[in-house]
Amino acid sequence: MDRYKSLQIANFSMHPTAVLLVSCPDQKGLVAKIANFIYANGGNVIHADQHTDGIAGLFLMRIEWELAGFNLPREVIAPAFQAIAQPLEATWRLHFSDAISRMAIWVSKQDHCLYDLLWRHQAQEFPAKIPLIISNHPDLGDIATQFGIDYHYLPMTKETKLEQEVKQLALLEEYAIDVVVLAKYMQVISEDFINQFSKPIINIHHSFLPAFVGASPYQQAYDRGVKIIGATGHYVTKELDAGPIIEQDVVRVSHRDQVIDLVRKGKDLERVVLARAVRSHLQNRVLVYGNRTVVFE
Amino acid sequence: MDRYKSLQIANFSMHPTAVLLVSCPDQKGLVAKIANFIYANGGNVIHADQHTDGIAGLFLMRIEWELAGFNLPREVIAPAFQAIAQPLEATWRLHFSDAISRMAIWVSKQDHCLYDLLWRHQAQEFPAKIPLIISNHPDLGDIATQFGIDYHYLPMTKETKLEQEVKQLALLEEYAIDVVVLAKYMQVISEDFINQFSKPIINIHHSFLPAFVGASPYQQAYDRGVKIIGATGHYVTKELDAGPIIEQDVVRVSHRDQVIDLVRKGKDLERVVLARAVRSHLQNRVLVYGNRTVVFE
Amino acid sequence: MDRYKSLQIANFSMHPTAVLLVSCPDQKGLVAKIANFIYANGGNVIHADQHTDGIAGLFLMRIEWELAGFNLPREVIAPAFQAIAQPLEATWRLHFSDAISRMAIWVSKQDHCLYDLLWRHQAQEFPAKIPLIISNHPDLGDIATQFGIDYHYLPMTKETKLEQEVKQLALLEEYAIDVVVLAKYMQVISEDFINQFSKPIINIHHSFLPAFVGASPYQQAYDRGVKIIGATGHYVTKELDAGPIIEQDVVRVSHRDQVIDLVRKGKDLERVVLARAVRSHLQNRVLVYGNRTVVFE
Amino acid sequence: MDRYKSLQIANFSMHPTAVLLVSCPDQKGLVAKIANFIYANGGNVIHADQHTDGIAGLFLMRIEWELAGFNLPREVIAPAFQAIAQPLEATWRLHFSDAISRMAIWVSKQDHCLYDLLWRHQAQEFPAKIPLIISNHPDLGDIATQFGIDYHYLPMTKETKLEQEVKQLALLEEYAIDVVVLAKYMQVISEDFINQFSKPIINIHHSFLPAFVGASPYQQAYDRGVKIIGATGHYVTKELDAGPIIEQDVVRVSHRDQVIDLVRKGKDLERVVLARAVRSHLQNRVLVYGNRTVVFE
Repeated sequence: MDRYKSLQIANFSMHPTAVLLVSCPDQKGLVAKIANFIYANGGNVIHADQHTDGIAGLFLMRIEWELAGFNLPREVIAPAFQAIAQPLEATWRLHFSDAISRMAIWVSKQDHCLYDLLWRHQAQEFPAKIPLIISNHPDLGDIATQFGIDYHYLPMTKETKLEQEVKQLALLEEYAIDVVVLAKYMQVISEDFINQFSKPIINIHHSFLPAFVGASPYQQAYDRGVKIIGATGHYVTKELDAGPIIEQDVVRVSHRDQVIDLVRKGKDLERVVLARAVRSHLQNRVLVYGNRTVVFE
Repeated sequence: MDRYKSLQIANFSMHPTAVLLVSCPDQKGLVAKIANFIYANGGNVIHADQHTDGIAGLFLMRIEWELAGFNLPREVIAPAFQAIAQPLEATWRLHFSDAISRMAIWVSKQDHCLYDLLWRHQAQEFPAKIPLIISNHPDLGDIATQFGIDYHYLPMTKETKLEQEVKQLALLEEYAIDVVVLAKYMQVISEDFINQFSKPIINIHHSFLPAFVGASPYQQAYDRGVKIIGATGHYVTKELDAGPIIEQDVVRVSHRDQVIDLVRKGKDLERVVLARAVRSHLQNRVLVYGNRTVVFE
Repeated sequence: MDRYKSLQIANFSMHPTAVLLVSCPDQKGLVAKIANFIYANGGNVIHADQHTDGIAGLFLMRIEWELAGFNLPREVIAPAFQAIAQPLEATWRLHFSDAISRMAIWVSKQDHCLYDLLWRHQAQEFPAKIPLIISNHPDLGDIATQFGIDYHYLPMTKETKLEQEVKQLALLEEYAIDVVVLAKYMQVISEDFINQFSKPIINIHHSFLPAFVGASPYQQAYDRGVKIIGATGHYVTKELDAGPIIEQDVVRVSHRDQVIDLVRKGKDLERVVLARAVRSHLQNRVLVYGNRTVVFE
Repeated sequence: MDRYKSLQIANFSMHPTAVLLVSCPDQKGLVAKIANFIYANGGNVIHADQHTDGIAGLFLMRIEWELAGFNLPREVIAPAFQAIAQPLEATWRLHFSDAISRMAIWVSKQDHCLYDLLWRHQAQEFPAKIPLIISNHPDLGDIATQFGIDYHYLPMTKETKLEQEVKQLALLEEYAIDVVVLAKYMQVISEDFINQFSKPIINIHHSFLPAFVGASPYQQAYDRGVKIIGATGHYVTKELDAGPIIEQDVVRVSHRDQVIDLVRKGKDLERVVLARAVRSHLQNRVLVYGNRTVVFE
């Protein structure tokens, strides 16, 4: 295993890569033009995948290449690519694999997703730093301490929601957070907050969306008598539980399973689905368009 | 395989069994009393399973025993068991494994579920006779002919729905049908019809219910950008797509899948989910209570 | 969730139950006789399930009832049941749900299964005490400390294996261990050890057994080019990776997955498969016969 | 559905495409060079995907473009691309989507895979013609008749195997067959045959390979007591059941499942796994290297 671990660390930092995520109206020559840009500057492509949505008339691409041996300095890549992107009417993002994202985890009282994310982080599964945990309850502060992460307890009531969200925003800015992960944070994020925090927010919803939107999905699932339950990792948008889906998975249940069993089985789903969604996001594999995602593999 | 086939046929007819499906308020001694009834009359139990729903305070049991060597003649079993069931306030059904159910299949234009059911019937997977196919389109008549089954074409329009349902009911009575299977029958069954036809109706819905109720679930799934699609086999009740669920299954999809691909992948799901639901029903393994099912395995 | 947690704790301790696991040659009246024993003594059955293996001519049953209101004192149940079991030539085990098993976890260097078991234990998923961790490496001692569990580091070499196994046996006796869980313990257990330790040992093997027995199953899986990988929770017997299987699960992989990715995906499988196997065992739901298991649900 | 069907037919024939499957030693500029070849000649890429196997130092690519508007006549594409491929030391194949493959199906006595392939062919799922069925038994001749396909009955004994294989080869040549699908053909194909028939042969093996190689895998699975069974679609090579895997899938089983139930559940797996493998092959999505496959999606 030690060999694997060191390989993995190497992967994140020792052979840095650049990733371009591009979407534009479909037209001839897109793959060639984008690949040429990299080849002409001496880049070695290690991953290239594209998808054309015929109905939307949209071309979407992810291309990743090694920075070692690439002739353009990092700061020049974006302006240079913009010269190619502009005539294509492309929207695009450029990422460097060693520009580690700063992730905040928000929780309430349940610890399983938090523990899981922190364990995976420790196990080098995530190319991210986790400097901040925010909670509306004090319960999980000890876990934060144990992993050496700052824990901010901001209790939420109807009356204080507005001012607490101001504090949340201030913390996210103070810690220079790039992505917020709601790891069983049992509060609705206000439209105002979403408008002001322009970075992505990933949520784990404990149902197979769009079934069982809102509160108590396991109770809803039990009442409906389903034979399979699910979990959904998605980006948060203004409409509750309706944002673009990144990942889903399911597990079989039976008449023997009470709500408490659905909760228990669901925890295993939630952990793994959230982890996969976060990992895809952090590796810059997710492109959102409309209310859909392309998750490049 | 020949050995298996003959074993299977044997299973249906040469060693007939009786099955009791019982539900009653939970209390002490239920397993003992029911098992004693069979043992006292010389029966050999080959399957017994029970479930207690603590919230509903309900005891549910399936018990199956060999009729060979059983001391009570068939026609006496029901009255004899009623003497035990009455003080327990039990509702119950008695089935004999060689009393083969008569099944009608209703279809529209799609052939995959029909073909699949007929092939499985031929392969001895179903303990049933299939004397009747009803359709609101003429398209699948040739398949009926090929398998030697009567095909009744009853076109449906808003104006004719009422009178056509009268004809459907008459056909079900004429053919002495015990169970109707809607194998992609793309018409809503009226409340009147359900009131009048007192036997079970099984439907395959091409989504993971309760997600995507109603028309065009694959288009709905595509629009929502889900990463998994499903199919649901359920009993039909007056509320559309809301009846007790017997079986569900799912398959993973990706951004590469257009609606046409969801339709194709979904067909494989629909075939297998409907077949499992029908088989569980025909083997008298399904007990409905409230809007839930117990499917004994 | 707090409500669920307290319910779950209640389940383990406040309403203690007795469980009988019985296997005997198949014959008439078995369900009745066993159910009668409980009913005659005032017991309320909350779970009863049986399975008949027609080929082996074997009847296997699990029956669970509430001790509250049961007329026989605990210490009399076993001798009383023996009077029924003897003429049936039955082998059987009696368990009380509040007689919490004492579990030892054995590890090497990988922490994911250990962390997972300890987290689940904390979350009340396991009716067990975990007083002892044994390892052939010092690496995971800090985790033991963090959860307040004794950690014994017993390094293994070819030369020391024999004497170290003596120490292991002594520790298991000292801590009164009922079940050993090999949570990625990367050493083969000797035949001698198995002969002397008469209690069950559960192992997680990182493949879909019987594929890829022995060392480096992920490398083997990669070399074979499989499209799905698995994990297997099984009882340890003298033949390596050949003991009775309790639980298996799988995950899809693709050509994009290098060995390092199989290892990562496999960890998620290993955690959940081992947890399910351990839980089924601790709830006395597993009956072994021949090299097979019945896992009552 | 009618709309979908016509869309699908359109897909196969009305908008013909070219597909290049390329593999070569990894080096800079490969994506650019290949994409440029298409763009420079006016082609519109509708699918491009590549994979780099770092360990093998191999680059593998699939690129598909519309022939409408492409400046090179079909017969010139191959020689033109060879000029690019040669300096890259690439091996490659060129396919046209309207050059429908000619597929032979080989069967023994079981009909489920045959029926399924024919039904899917009828449902336009496969871009192929099926002019020939070969069997070592006469049993399935009626199905061939029903679908209007030639059926050749070539009984196999140890003594006649050699001469019958000569006849098989002659038939494959006579019918100009491009791919053979073994749809539960229960005979081992000789090394001689494989040497002489240079085209691909796809087999469905009724286990999760490499578990349960050879005869009676369901009996083997039952004896081992596995909790999951599988099926594997793979290319046939000289070593039995050891060829490159195209597709696998699994289904959960329990102690209740006898061998006959594994056979029944397995049939559903075999049908769908074989269909997926055949479809990926026919769409030219499979690249074999070493004993592994890349299945482009």
